[in-house]
Amino acid sequence: MAIVGATGLVGRELLAILSCSPLGRGPVRLFAGARSAGTTLPWRGATAPVMAAGPDVFRGVDLAFFCAGGEVSRELADAAVAAGAVVIDNTSAFRMQPDVPLVVPEVNGDALDDFESPGIIANPNCSTIIALMAVTPLHRAAGVTRMVVCTYQAASGAGHAFVRELQQQAEDHVAGRPYTQDIIGRPYLFNLFSHDSPIGPDGYNEEERKLVRETHKIWDDDTPRITATCVRVPVLRAHSEAINLTFNEPLSEADARELLAAAPGIRVVDDRKANRFPEPAEATGLDEVLVGRIRADISQPMGMGLDLFVCGDQLRKGAALNAVQIAERIFATSATEASASTAR
Amino acid sequence: MAIVGATGLVGRELLAILSCSPLGRGPVRLFAGARSAGTTLPWRGATAPVMAAGPDVFRGVDLAFFCAGGEVSRELADAAVAAGAVVIDNTSAFRMQPDVPLVVPEVNGDALDDFESPGIIANPNCSTIIALMAVTPLHRAAGVTRMVVCTYQAASGAGHAFVRELQQQAEDHVAGRPYTQDIIGRPYLFNLFSHDSPIGPDGYNEEERKLVRETHKIWDDDTPRITATCVRVPVLRAHSEAINLTFNEPLSEADARELLAAAPGIRVVDDRKANRFPEPAEATGLDEVLVGRIRADISQPMGMGLDLFVCGDQLRKGAALNAVQIAERIFATSATEASASTAR
Repeated sequence: MAIVGATGLVGRELLAILSCSPLGRGPVRLFAGARSAGTTLPWRGATAPVMAAGPDVFRGVDLAFFCAGGEVSRELADAAVAAGAVVIDNTSAFRMQPDVPLVVPEVNGDALDDFESPGIIANPNCSTIIALMAVTPLHRAAGVTRMVVCTYQAASGAGHAFVRELQQQAEDHVAGRPYTQDIIGRPYLFNLFSHDSPIGPDGYNEEERKLVRETHKIWDDDTPRITATCVRVPVLRAHSEAINLTFNEPLSEADARELLAAAPGIRVVDDRKANRFPEPAEATGLDEVLVGRIRADISQPMGMGLDLFVCGDQLRKGAALNAVQIAERIFATSATEASASTAR
Repeated sequence: MAIVGATGLVGRELLAILSCSPLGRGPVRLFAGARSAGTTLPWRGATAPVMAAGPDVFRGVDLAFFCAGGEVSRELADAAVAAGAVVIDNTSAFRMQPDVPLVVPEVNGDALDDFESPGIIANPNCSTIIALMAVTPLHRAAGVTRMVVCTYQAASGAGHAFVRELQQQAEDHVAGRPYTQDIIGRPYLFNLFSHDSPIGPDGYNEEERKLVRETHKIWDDDTPRITATCVRVPVLRAHSEAINLTFNEPLSEADARELLAAAPGIRVVDDRKANRFPEPAEATGLDEVLVGRIRADISQPMGMGLDLFVCGDQLRKGAALNAVQIAERIFATSATEASASTAR
């Protein structure tokens, strides 16, 4: 097993999750950019060396996680596949390629049924994963025809340096100094701003476009109309999303609540009396996506729309955990096939 | 002139604005609860004493701002009116009373035309004011039939103690201490949560209901369908809102942009190339509401929907400034009438 981009936030989260997974029992090779090569990372009670990545490092690797950015994936993923690896790519490099499955196991795990190893599987964008975990059970029941998403995204989605500078700004604030802005280029503490991804000619930023396109691919259905406004808020690592849905068929609030309570990977947090709903501080470190503020939308004919508020750990279900779940699904299948062919 | 609730965040902002207004030229009487009575507040280069409020303190007062909470307004506003004052009430106590005008001067200033002094005028809820400043010019042009609002609300809306505790949590964070939670009851720094107002049986909280009801009253039109999700984010004093609109008649993005650029009290901040859009840190202290992320909604037939992102200083246009603008409108009218009748 290999992790390319092991020293980043997602890489470290992958190591933490894999150390508790059967997948982590074998040897692990950790790769990073030239600056981090030569260091070590904690691994299963010991440490593992971090090496420089290159096209010739994948011999004997059966599974490779890529989380070092799209450029590295485009440069090296094919080499890993050529060496015989299943590549699970956390970047946007291959997500929209028709022959690459884009998978949230609880949502479209069956997209892996026809997967032929070796090859590439894409891990969706964090906001998309978190939204679809909550919306898909409702979509299956009532058919989502339109979705309006507003995000409240954490610093972790932009990486280590972003998170550190947000924390640095808190120190600056308390010390009465001007805020350090080397990475973020603006005050982030006690502020928020439109998502820091490029804006297209239609005025949507890349993060918003991902949410639209990836949802269509994961649902294998282009018909739901989707708009999104993606915003960075001064939160460290869990994303929140306010989601407004329009249905094709009526779905009562009670039925929606029941569907969500029964959905895998979801925890309903919806205590109206105590005013307790999903919060990023509570979602941080959890595997489940928290869902609350479940209510029939009063702006649509009763039963034809619903409002939700979701929070999910951007680094876990929004990235590393989902990637590991994909791998577990692939390798459980392979293991079964292997033992079946051995028995033959 | 009197200010009831002078020591609160809105009260202090009122003093700052009134000190630069012709309205502030006369004597001012400042009132607050028993705990603050006996203190002083800065006023036009000197200080003014803060007294305890009661029903008998309004003799000779022609204009009284109330910003001490709904209970105080319900208790004392009638006494102020009986003494001959125009009451501008910043609380929700009288907003939905049919005989009380609910006014954003740029939006429905004409609702003051029939106002008979003395009497009560209600200042709308902050989120409503900020949203309607941006949406009304578009509503007038194309007829808003549906509006989906997601808010990113600052600590200031919940008062002094809230703001102080958020800043205290930053100190706690930097010092490595557990967060102080005496007022807010949860981590707020690096976190967010559903708006801290009571939830009704339909699952909407009071802040969301205000946005719906007050919009209908201010527009004098119950037909637009409105849903909202109100969220507190760790920002000190400017509110942000992502607004999705559906129109009755087509409105191009270019026309919307032109209408907003020409609208009073609005500043368009919409630089796609530089990724610069409204931010609460920039809206803080400004009179204008910032509007950006103006784009045709791709989830609706082209021209029939629009997405916006707005930021406004919750204490200025969202509260104190709007109240002063109402007063200036009333007293300018009275002044004109007075001089007209003198001339007669």
